Amino acid sequence: MKVYLDNNATTRISKEVIEELSYALKIFGNPSSIHRYGRDAREIIEKARRRVAGAIGARREKEIIFTSGGTEANNIAVSGTLKKYPSKKHIITSRIEHHSVLNIFRYYEEKGYDVSWIDAGSDGIVDTEQILSELREDTALVSIMAANNETGAIQPLRNIVKKVKKISPRTVFHTDAVQFFGKDHLNAVELDADLITISGHKIHGPKGIGALYVKNGVKIDNIVFGGHHERGIRPGTENVSFIAGLGKAAEAVSHQQAGKDYRRIEELREMLIGGLLNIPGEVIINGSPDKSLVNTLNVSFKNIEGESVIMMLDSAGIAVSSGSACTSGAIEPSHVLTAMGIDPVTAQGSVRFSLSKYNTKEEIAYVIKQAGPIVKKLRDISPL
Amino acid sequence: MKVYLDNNATTRISKEVIEELSYALKIFGNPSSIHRYGRDAREIIEKARRRVAGAIGARREKEIIFTSGGTEANNIAVSGTLKKYPSKKHIITSRIEHHSVLNIFRYYEEKGYDVSWIDAGSDGIVDTEQILSELREDTALVSIMAANNETGAIQPLRNIVKKVKKISPRTVFHTDAVQFFGKDHLNAVELDADLITISGHKIHGPKGIGALYVKNGVKIDNIVFGGHHERGIRPGTENVSFIAGLGKAAEAVSHQQAGKDYRRIEELREMLIGGLLNIPGEVIINGSPDKSLVNTLNVSFKNIEGESVIMMLDSAGIAVSSGSACTSGAIEPSHVLTAMGIDPVTAQGSVRFSLSKYNTKEEIAYVIKQAGPIVKKLRDISPL
Repeated sequence: MKVYLDNNATTRISKEVIEELSYALKIFGNPSSIHRYGRDAREIIEKARRRVAGAIGARREKEIIFTSGGTEANNIAVSGTLKKYPSKKHIITSRIEHHSVLNIFRYYEEKGYDVSWIDAGSDGIVDTEQILSELREDTALVSIMAANNETGAIQPLRNIVKKVKKISPRTVFHTDAVQFFGKDHLNAVELDADLITISGHKIHGPKGIGALYVKNGVKIDNIVFGGHHERGIRPGTENVSFIAGLGKAAEAVSHQQAGKDYRRIEELREMLIGGLLNIPGEVIINGSPDKSLVNTLNVSFKNIEGESVIMMLDSAGIAVSSGSACTSGAIEPSHVLTAMGIDPVTAQGSVRFSLSKYNTKEEIAYVIKQAGPIVKKLRDISPL
Repeated sequence: MKVYLDNNATTRISKEVIEELSYALKIFGNPSSIHRYGRDAREIIEKARRRVAGAIGARREKEIIFTSGGTEANNIAVSGTLKKYPSKKHIITSRIEHHSVLNIFRYYEEKGYDVSWIDAGSDGIVDTEQILSELREDTALVSIMAANNETGAIQPLRNIVKKVKKISPRTVFHTDAVQFFGKDHLNAVELDADLITISGHKIHGPKGIGALYVKNGVKIDNIVFGGHHERGIRPGTENVSFIAGLGKAAEAVSHQQAGKDYRRIEELREMLIGGLLNIPGEVIINGSPDKSLVNTLNVSFKNIEGESVIMMLDSAGIAVSSGSACTSGAIEPSHVLTAMGIDPVTAQGSVRFSLSKYNTKEEIAYVIKQAGPIVKKLRDISPL
């Protein structure tokens, strides 16, 4: 049996998305061209823009800027804002962000920016009061993710945005919603963030496509130079077919069906939690499933390396991860778990199970059955 | 009849590329993941890297960095070099570059960099002696395109690189080979440039994928922050399927068949030139077809707007362009043609025909047959 439980790293592309993008691949004109071929390609892009805008509850289609993925969208959000407001030298983010936010904040810190790094509690939730207390006259940007990739912790974003806007209405608010979108209800208007990042490949869409929501009236600079594509914010010939794919994928997760999928996924996770907690020896749940994305479960098996568990599960046909996939080649304990106050040994023993609508009860039963003996075997040979 | 003659704007994606990338879409793992799904995706990327390296004659696979397209690759080349050598404040480029090079050079000029702008002759060829005479101790970068998108003019790049390297061995040499690659023989080792940009969608590959060749030993910084993807030079989850597509497309244009295609395309262009020059009234060839890509023909019909010709040809099912596609919505005369000393009126009357291996004699005959009456009609109503 093969079981894919690494959906926070990336997801299986859905049949309807493949169909949509395969059709679009044949409409090969350059959307900047004024002839028929160009206009046909342009139509595909604008249809997808409407779909994405609709899926995230944006008021206007033009608020959607297509990018090559979440990393680029996060970089445009941060650098594009700081380039626009060069005199403001203070920025705020959390210690549990994705590397694409974390590392660009580190870059600006090295360049002389003052960065307020916000902590997270043992439940994986960032400290709202700390964010508010750090706000200053010259705070250009606050960037707080909507949900964490490793623990699934859903941040109290509406509350944070509301309070930040009240204290500091001219501070730009960005959220990396790459993990949140498609696993919970995202509405740009209700959320009231200025900039929202989403990605295709986390929602059964293709890799290499994402979008940045830029609220009407919010000004950001481009970070790459070229033509006038995407209102000049993201130059470069548009990836027409993957934009179509993203449109389809976004639409799918905004349907009523998505809500049913979430509930079913949560039941599977409950089943998984029950099974794993039955394994003899200490099993620690990192973060708080109640406050997390329904699909995400992060556990540590005491005295075992997470990497070893992953490798043995892989041999049994089961795909999971430790830490985020982007750094799973690295050996340091997860920056997210350590920021939550989890000790490095426990953090290194962490394993992330992330489900999708394609998982079944049979698969979860199989995972539980395999995990017990693997953990036992690893404990037996563990030097710890 | 539908005839697509706008292949310098973008190309029809080939069947074999669609097959290759469609297969890769199903290998959906995150290439950074250590489990089987991840390793399978990684294999696809590395196979494509070998293919691209082979296609451009690179010595080492690791010299290929995948990007989201030509614009991003050009930006990484320029900004990545300047970030690496912050004390060198002089850069050289030509006035006929693509907007992605032109506009980033303008940005650095505004930021205080000293830019030497190199002219082009009426044949569309840049002035080699001027480049050499502008070289200084603090010249960080020279960026000269391999062939121009609007006129097809092939630059004497091997000679330029050789002489620049002799005078200023520590100056980084970049070339935007987006238009050249796939229409003529590109060999990175023979060329000896440090950085070479290529793009997928100009060689019957997908839009939204490109590559930057970074010669072994050449150091550049990343411009976007995130994970360690593509040796840290281009962070962000890799577009696995389009990387596979680029690999296939690059391989196709490096085969012996490509040489035969070039000759056939050149014959079609000869036929087109003959037909267009037979149209009564002044027909001017912009640039010099002998010194240009075999597929490109840029002509001006005296006293007519190029845009009008395009629109009427479009009504007849024929796709061509005026100026580069990226700015075809704009009304200014082409910066390339004006840099060549062509007067603005003639430049505004320019029409670019760009062929591909998919064109046929029948198509060219149809275009010639349609073009005559269209030009006559437009001349009759022209106020000029």
